[in-house]
Amino acid sequence: MRPTTSFDSFSPIDYRYWDESLSPYFSDRGFLDYKMQAEIALLKALEKHKMCPASVVQEVEVACKSVTSEEVYAEEERIKHDIRALVNVIRSKVSDSAKPFVHMTATSYDIIDTANAARFRDATQKVLVPALKDLEKVLIDLTLREAGTVQVGRTHGQHAVPITFGFALSGYVSRLGVCIEALDALAKELRGKFSGAVGAYNASSLFFDDPESFENDVLTGLGLQASEQSTQVTQPEPMARLMAEVSITLGVLANLSDDMRALQRTEIGEIGEEFEASQVGSSTMPQKRNPINFENVKSIWKIVMPRVATIFLDQISEHQRDLTNSASSRTYGESIAYTLSAVKRLTKTMSKLKVDMGNLEKNLALGRGSVAAEPLYIILASLGHPDAHEKVRNLTLTAGQEGKGLEEVALSDAEMAPYLLRMTEAQKNILKNPSLYTGIAEKKAKAVAENWHKRLSL
Amino acid sequence: MRPTTSFDSFSPIDYRYWDESLSPYFSDRGFLDYKMQAEIALLKALEKHKMCPASVVQEVEVACKSVTSEEVYAEEERIKHDIRALVNVIRSKVSDSAKPFVHMTATSYDIIDTANAARFRDATQKVLVPALKDLEKVLIDLTLREAGTVQVGRTHGQHAVPITFGFALSGYVSRLGVCIEALDALAKELRGKFSGAVGAYNASSLFFDDPESFENDVLTGLGLQASEQSTQVTQPEPMARLMAEVSITLGVLANLSDDMRALQRTEIGEIGEEFEASQVGSSTMPQKRNPINFENVKSIWKIVMPRVATIFLDQISEHQRDLTNSASSRTYGESIAYTLSAVKRLTKTMSKLKVDMGNLEKNLALGRGSVAAEPLYIILASLGHPDAHEKVRNLTLTAGQEGKGLEEVALSDAEMAPYLLRMTEAQKNILKNPSLYTGIAEKKAKAVAENWHKRLSL
Amino acid sequence: MRPTTSFDSFSPIDYRYWDESLSPYFSDRGFLDYKMQAEIALLKALEKHKMCPASVVQEVEVACKSVTSEEVYAEEERIKHDIRALVNVIRSKVSDSAKPFVHMTATSYDIIDTANAARFRDATQKVLVPALKDLEKVLIDLTLREAGTVQVGRTHGQHAVPITFGFALSGYVSRLGVCIEALDALAKELRGKFSGAVGAYNASSLFFDDPESFENDVLTGLGLQASEQSTQVTQPEPMARLMAEVSITLGVLANLSDDMRALQRTEIGEIGEEFEASQVGSSTMPQKRNPINFENVKSIWKIVMPRVATIFLDQISEHQRDLTNSASSRTYGESIAYTLSAVKRLTKTMSKLKVDMGNLEKNLALGRGSVAAEPLYIILASLGHPDAHEKVRNLTLTAGQEGKGLEEVALSDAEMAPYLLRMTEAQKNILKNPSLYTGIAEKKAKAVAENWHKRLSL
Amino acid sequence: MRPTTSFDSFSPIDYRYWDESLSPYFSDRGFLDYKMQAEIALLKALEKHKMCPASVVQEVEVACKSVTSEEVYAEEERIKHDIRALVNVIRSKVSDSAKPFVHMTATSYDIIDTANAARFRDATQKVLVPALKDLEKVLIDLTLREAGTVQVGRTHGQHAVPITFGFALSGYVSRLGVCIEALDALAKELRGKFSGAVGAYNASSLFFDDPESFENDVLTGLGLQASEQSTQVTQPEPMARLMAEVSITLGVLANLSDDMRALQRTEIGEIGEEFEASQVGSSTMPQKRNPINFENVKSIWKIVMPRVATIFLDQISEHQRDLTNSASSRTYGESIAYTLSAVKRLTKTMSKLKVDMGNLEKNLALGRGSVAAEPLYIILASLGHPDAHEKVRNLTLTAGQEGKGLEEVALSDAEMAPYLLRMTEAQKNILKNPSLYTGIAEKKAKAVAENWHKRLSL
Repeated sequence: MRPTTSFDSFSPIDYRYWDESLSPYFSDRGFLDYKMQAEIALLKALEKHKMCPASVVQEVEVACKSVTSEEVYAEEERIKHDIRALVNVIRSKVSDSAKPFVHMTATSYDIIDTANAARFRDATQKVLVPALKDLEKVLIDLTLREAGTVQVGRTHGQHAVPITFGFALSGYVSRLGVCIEALDALAKELRGKFSGAVGAYNASSLFFDDPESFENDVLTGLGLQASEQSTQVTQPEPMARLMAEVSITLGVLANLSDDMRALQRTEIGEIGEEFEASQVGSSTMPQKRNPINFENVKSIWKIVMPRVATIFLDQISEHQRDLTNSASSRTYGESIAYTLSAVKRLTKTMSKLKVDMGNLEKNLALGRGSVAAEPLYIILASLGHPDAHEKVRNLTLTAGQEGKGLEEVALSDAEMAPYLLRMTEAQKNILKNPSLYTGIAEKKAKAVAENWHKRLSL
Repeated sequence: MRPTTSFDSFSPIDYRYWDESLSPYFSDRGFLDYKMQAEIALLKALEKHKMCPASVVQEVEVACKSVTSEEVYAEEERIKHDIRALVNVIRSKVSDSAKPFVHMTATSYDIIDTANAARFRDATQKVLVPALKDLEKVLIDLTLREAGTVQVGRTHGQHAVPITFGFALSGYVSRLGVCIEALDALAKELRGKFSGAVGAYNASSLFFDDPESFENDVLTGLGLQASEQSTQVTQPEPMARLMAEVSITLGVLANLSDDMRALQRTEIGEIGEEFEASQVGSSTMPQKRNPINFENVKSIWKIVMPRVATIFLDQISEHQRDLTNSASSRTYGESIAYTLSAVKRLTKTMSKLKVDMGNLEKNLALGRGSVAAEPLYIILASLGHPDAHEKVRNLTLTAGQEGKGLEEVALSDAEMAPYLLRMTEAQKNILKNPSLYTGIAEKKAKAVAENWHKRLSL
Repeated sequence: MRPTTSFDSFSPIDYRYWDESLSPYFSDRGFLDYKMQAEIALLKALEKHKMCPASVVQEVEVACKSVTSEEVYAEEERIKHDIRALVNVIRSKVSDSAKPFVHMTATSYDIIDTANAARFRDATQKVLVPALKDLEKVLIDLTLREAGTVQVGRTHGQHAVPITFGFALSGYVSRLGVCIEALDALAKELRGKFSGAVGAYNASSLFFDDPESFENDVLTGLGLQASEQSTQVTQPEPMARLMAEVSITLGVLANLSDDMRALQRTEIGEIGEEFEASQVGSSTMPQKRNPINFENVKSIWKIVMPRVATIFLDQISEHQRDLTNSASSRTYGESIAYTLSAVKRLTKTMSKLKVDMGNLEKNLALGRGSVAAEPLYIILASLGHPDAHEKVRNLTLTAGQEGKGLEEVALSDAEMAPYLLRMTEAQKNILKNPSLYTGIAEKKAKAVAENWHKRLSL
Repeated sequence: MRPTTSFDSFSPIDYRYWDESLSPYFSDRGFLDYKMQAEIALLKALEKHKMCPASVVQEVEVACKSVTSEEVYAEEERIKHDIRALVNVIRSKVSDSAKPFVHMTATSYDIIDTANAARFRDATQKVLVPALKDLEKVLIDLTLREAGTVQVGRTHGQHAVPITFGFALSGYVSRLGVCIEALDALAKELRGKFSGAVGAYNASSLFFDDPESFENDVLTGLGLQASEQSTQVTQPEPMARLMAEVSITLGVLANLSDDMRALQRTEIGEIGEEFEASQVGSSTMPQKRNPINFENVKSIWKIVMPRVATIFLDQISEHQRDLTNSASSRTYGESIAYTLSAVKRLTKTMSKLKVDMGNLEKNLALGRGSVAAEPLYIILASLGHPDAHEKVRNLTLTAGQEGKGLEEVALSDAEMAPYLLRMTEAQKNILKNPSLYTGIAEKKAKAVAENWHKRLSL
């Protein structure tokens, strides 16, 4: 049974997060097109090896253009085999003399796995990676813009020591950059196959002295290389690695989104998603400005991440293959489609991100200088205090109890006096103004941004 | 963006495993219908509490009938809020005097989570459980038919001691029966809510002295009870338990399917799927008869099982809720839809299952009586042999080395003679004919089948 | 190979989160003790059925007391079979006349699965559930104490409308309460078995007319019932359900912990973990007060949750069983042990939780009354305003732009005047003081707390 | 609390699958040693940068040798911080003048994450990869030995067309080879860090103009490079990739084990695990020879595979880090330890694998030539038959119904006659003796084996 319109769809990937740009690869129809490309590549290789006349290739190319999904499904309904159905439909559209060459020496999965390798490679390289590069570019621009914007660093959700907002973002630039390169590299590792029903080139050996060379000729037609060894199907690991990296990539985006959500909390308010004038935040609380885009990215990650297990389960196939990966492998494209949806949403949201300087400063000031506890302890230690950490820990306890700033408490502490005298001006300045204590945050942010701008040619 | 036809779908649940019977619950449109049911139930409760005139209820009921998915999406596109979009569309179709009552006191998730509870309950009870009962009935019939059909029992894939095929099947009858009852019970535990934006009945308390009673009136309209406590959303655990049980149920079916596949192996051949005359088993190996239906069920399980993690991740929502379960919770229905597809396929396949008596007998005879090693050891022990297990282990080694039957070796062993003399006729018969050594397999198979036939009123 | 001390352990459950109270159930030694209990229960049933003299039971009971783990492992090393090794060791400690009765008619998994059912039931009922009840009691006390403590409600991390802190906690009381009851119920559903090598009572049928009655006699010795049907092993679903519920329970605790962590953020500061005077928060930032206990609970959940998949994978066992669940099922107890560790930690932390009234009030006041947008909109709608939501949304935008309070802006808005005149005093009070707008939060918190106090007899 | 002996352990990794060779990396004590290595590397870098005298380095090196796990735990118990505890213990063992230099400028995770990178790299490169190479070597030898051993190929558990057993094994050689190279490469990608509490080099900037150069000096001491950017912790993705590959590697071994188990089924019997004379297969069925080693590998995979989700969950850490990965990351080493256990077991089992030539031949002959259906169909098509697949499908149906061989039926079919006349001798031979129809199985097996023998220098 089939739904009539997208409103009848069960999966949100087909009514809410669907994206036309992936349709040539991951739609039911797109898959069919790739399978026909594989059948045509086979015929071209047969022609090259003088097994079939050029006219047959042309005949089949023309025939494939008129193949409809409907007729393939009708034939499958009759004979219960999807690839044989496609072959029958193509054969029905060509001359009797061309018929025997269609699918010649091929087993179904020579076609399907080759088509899969080609379409997952193309979807990754032509759609997902470019979309990720767009996001990376936005993140790089933002990193450079905010490289010097001082922000309190937070560990455990607690104020730690200062960084800059651009520095925080540069971590995502770096992590995402590695993912982009990894995805591209792993997509290239996908392999096709034309080694027949059990992978031993049994059928093609009937005709070719060097069936591996014939296989290469077929696969070259789709820009692919062959698995070093295959059974009825290609080795599952390259796909598993690619899909694991898709999940890892989305994990980076989920982490970024969690951070952005937290920075938007009412009490923190350091950043904000742009809100359209007509946008409604809540059906009942008219004042709400919710970080729905960042929340959505996290939710998409929750969909995609566990599905890596499906792919890892599909690694196991008995002997020269069983079919228990057939239904499950049809779902892999969804993970890329969900990820694309998250990437595009994040690109749009991050490109309009607003930073609230007032709140950044206000939050940094909250601890009345306690973020300077670390430099104070370290300077003290470097000046030879035998128990600097414990000393400063006690000063911060005092400051907390008396509601005073750390500098104030330190200045009035008798034990501290001799050390304070020996501190440099720069060190004293940090104690006075902890917002200076950002290490090389700005420099690092810029360096990371520039590195990836260059490495990815953005 | 939306696909135009089902051939543009990315998810196989929308082009290959879709089932019309679940469309009222899990399609995008079906969800909309349930949300409108919740809005109408709200109005009826308002009317009961004298907050709105009966005419408004009627007006809105009529209006809802003409609401199209297209117009709701167009409005959502404009204001970026799905439920407010629905409310606006309904309001646009009623008189000004009716407008204020639409969605009154409700927050979005009063509608959404109530609709979710109702549709998952209905899909489970009206579609999934009945389909499972159909399957259970087929399994019960098969169990009764094959209750006395002797089959070698297998552990570790190795011959153990005999059972009957019906006995093996009765295990699935029992396990599936428990799942059916559990699914039904868990569906009943799904809860709605009408406690407003943060669950404290803030809005409804403005109008009602006993807002919990008002909530109950709304929910009764959909046959639901209220969560004992809710935030903006209902407690996630009842849904998590239901969906975990869906996966567990499918796990039972996957186990059954694995067994059936193994029994169909060329070398074993004890059962077979019926094959249609026109059916093609392989695009290149014309003789093939593949257990594709059982393989499909296993593959569906690989899709559904890992998704339990998505639901467990959705248990965690910050404070009175965050929206990170919004996209992910839209995928839950797919797991039920995939499961239904597997259930129906299995029902059809099992109802036509063929048993090959010749192969059953041939396989049982393979070990030349070594399956009698267990009874021999136990009888020996009961007759006082001090080291019966080791004695019989050595007899089987001898039988294996000499290519003889276990009985033959035992009869010619001097140490065995005094014990053989003391064995009963029944005991000797088992040694001679191990196919008698089936314990209470037949009786148990029948008892289990009859128990579930009765418990589930099949 | 075996580690010499716990410092050689690889798993943190054995060097960091280990808990003595679970050692009788989940340690290697504890498992051995349960297996011996099963062997003794078998002998008692044999005696009841006049198959063996009472003296044998006593002899074996005495022998079991002296069995060491070391000797069982030494024997297993020799013969490569764990249960047979135990049987051999027991047999080596009894008289020749007692030897044949040890393990009589039993297959290994009659012992192992029966022991598993008993020890998981006991660990759940005697350790995990009582620990959870201790936590529930702490949460109930806290809920009652804070039932009236006004707190801003938060959705999407943004201020929504007010609740009370006790109300927020009551959600966890309710959710955890259901889990406790579910765990207890599911532990009772664990089943033993004594149906032999393939589950058909082949061996016991050699001696007993009603082997199911004999099975019941054995299992009664451990307080267990029998699986309706078993193969070599018990049905896997009862264990899968129990372990899924363990994960669900921990999910509730992880959610609570996430909330508590967020409320401890420097900018929010509504609650705090108690900190010991000597406690160090950071090795380098002496001022830090980190929510490490709540973070730990979340981390423990990340360990346990994915392991449900291991158990779901173990549902599938070929024919009368394969052994692919042997290593994996040895890990189940860890999930309960990790959960216990989280429960105890949370009990301690929550029992010392500090609430900061000043910050609660300060945070609620942050929005200058914008949390009253919901009641204002609803009251307006109830007074017949045709587009109340949009009106109030615009008022909040104005308030935001002008840095004014919502009440102030509303009072000075001409369109609002006629509606304000018609508002009741109570309604006006809420607008003036939104902290009154807590619905039935306090009442609900108390009701939930009292319900579970009673239901669980705390 | 801590267990006293390994018999008190809860995790089977600590009482059953523990391996001494990983103790220096993954035991609690081993981790401590790596943390001390990192502290020493810090001091050496301080010395290089003239921050501390050489004598301090020596003093600390000596002190570290006497640090016991017990005293570190005792101190942690007191101050609730693991790294500060270690620092305090070291400090207690050195002179007052050395004290301030210990841990100087470091934050805890400079030590911990650097130690983690080093120990996971070392465990992978020094233990896991060498063990995998041992296995690969055994598989290569077996592949070469069995390269020409004809075996029926199986798809869907059904006979397909012939291969050789060595060819089947060569697929695992190839897949495992890629995994070995990937593991080695990913281990090298693990990164350390010495960038302080929030990753911005705040503390080290107090002393060094180029704190990144100082970081490199520290890390070089452990043979590591620095993360391009870090927060308090290193980027999580390199570890996630390594651990995903560990699971993928184990997936290959699980697949191999499933195949070997199936080939050992009583009815198939093509291979066998070696069985020791004293080994017991079943506690009650003395004749059993169970494939327990292969079953164990599959079970180990069920433990490890789902845990990838734990690692993927740990990718997400708020802002400059939260601590919710602390407990969970302590479990990663277990996955490598379980995998090592499976690898070693498999190496031992495969190195003694027995092949039963008689059963290989008997099974191949089972179909009475129906495995020749594919070449017959393809040859027919190449000779111009317009519907060769359907023709041969009907011949196999006839053969099945009449209990005849495919060749016999083909020879007596009138329509076939003209085609048979035109077949070459080689083609006729394949029809007569389908065991010739193995394509390039033997050649491919050898080529794959030789490739990996060379690539991995085995």
